[in-house]
Amino acid sequence: MEFSSKLLENAVNEISQLPGIGKRTALRLALHLLRQPKENTHGLSKALNQMVDDLKLCKSCHNISDTELCDICANPMRKTDVICVVEDIRDVMAIENTASHKGLYHVLGGKISPMDGVGPHDLNISSLVEKVKSGSVKELIFALSPTMEGDTTNFYIYKQIKEFEVETSTIARGISVGDELEYADEITLGRSILNRIPFENSLKL
Amino acid sequence: MEFSSKLLENAVNEISQLPGIGKRTALRLALHLLRQPKENTHGLSKALNQMVDDLKLCKSCHNISDTELCDICANPMRKTDVICVVEDIRDVMAIENTASHKGLYHVLGGKISPMDGVGPHDLNISSLVEKVKSGSVKELIFALSPTMEGDTTNFYIYKQIKEFEVETSTIARGISVGDELEYADEITLGRSILNRIPFENSLKL
Repeated sequence: MEFSSKLLENAVNEISQLPGIGKRTALRLALHLLRQPKENTHGLSKALNQMVDDLKLCKSCHNISDTELCDICANPMRKTDVICVVEDIRDVMAIENTASHKGLYHVLGGKISPMDGVGPHDLNISSLVEKVKSGSVKELIFALSPTMEGDTTNFYIYKQIKEFEVETSTIARGISVGDELEYADEITLGRSILNRIPFENSLKL
Repeated sequence: MEFSSKLLENAVNEISQLPGIGKRTALRLALHLLRQPKENTHGLSKALNQMVDDLKLCKSCHNISDTELCDICANPMRKTDVICVVEDIRDVMAIENTASHKGLYHVLGGKISPMDGVGPHDLNISSLVEKVKSGSVKELIFALSPTMEGDTTNFYIYKQIKEFEVETSTIARGISVGDELEYADEITLGRSILNRIPFENSLKL
């Protein structure tokens, strides 16, 4: 791409560093910003800078927070002995939306994935093991995606904590509510039969 | 979406103002920036601010430029009496890539589109008419997209300048090179027969 302006070229190059944004899209976004009042772009830049400069990670659960302890960890109404282990903060937001978890979270910051060069030491696993070791945790809920990497991560953590007295569970895997049975994949359908639950229990939900 | 941080929320809101970027994508981009060194985000912000603060429009052709007169208008090798009329600077870049236009450009900044609230007075049309009026233009090449809006814009400009002595042409419309004839739409195929060119001319290309 030949640019008539170094300033435009520079901005397009920076924008196209973002994941999933190529040069053409970057150019479209840059031209959009140029058509807007300057203040819009200044506002965007300021918000981005403030975010990376001032954002903290909760010292307890590693959730993103503006304070030392995040709102969830600081909330006295939450059960502190039930911890839901998730991959990243988007999962915290998704589970919070369901309002079905009253305990705390522990954000790993990813999952073990040798293909992407992510090992156990790149994740917040040791602080989770410390929490369990201290005896303050009654139940650990593994809420990672049901993929090879998610299962590997679950199992790695499980091996580290199984010697301590703590219950472990994983979120239920089965047919999504509203799905047609005939379109479910074999593994999911097979497991949903093996892991069937008493019918009375399903009525309580 | 419930955010655990005002700073993150603010950044996501700003990012999702960009066209084609929703809240979910904005969150993904924000989390990506948070995983990168701070300097990357500072670089992005700086590039965006510099672009909107310092970028100029060429005073002659309205192309984006770092100087008063863009590189194309300032180039003594270009034919100053042949002007290619385009919608925006992406079209200038596309045509420059083909290296088949040796003249100058005139960037309208859009096309007439009453549906989007864009009238003739929102575009750089009067400065083009002035150029033609001054007698310095021999040929005007309309290179707008062959859409309803493009055709309307072409015709509007044509009406303004037809009283002056200037040749006008539009870029050829026909079957794209490499296309199968049977898949071409009727209008394009019909016009390509009506606007056929001497076979010898096609050999010269």
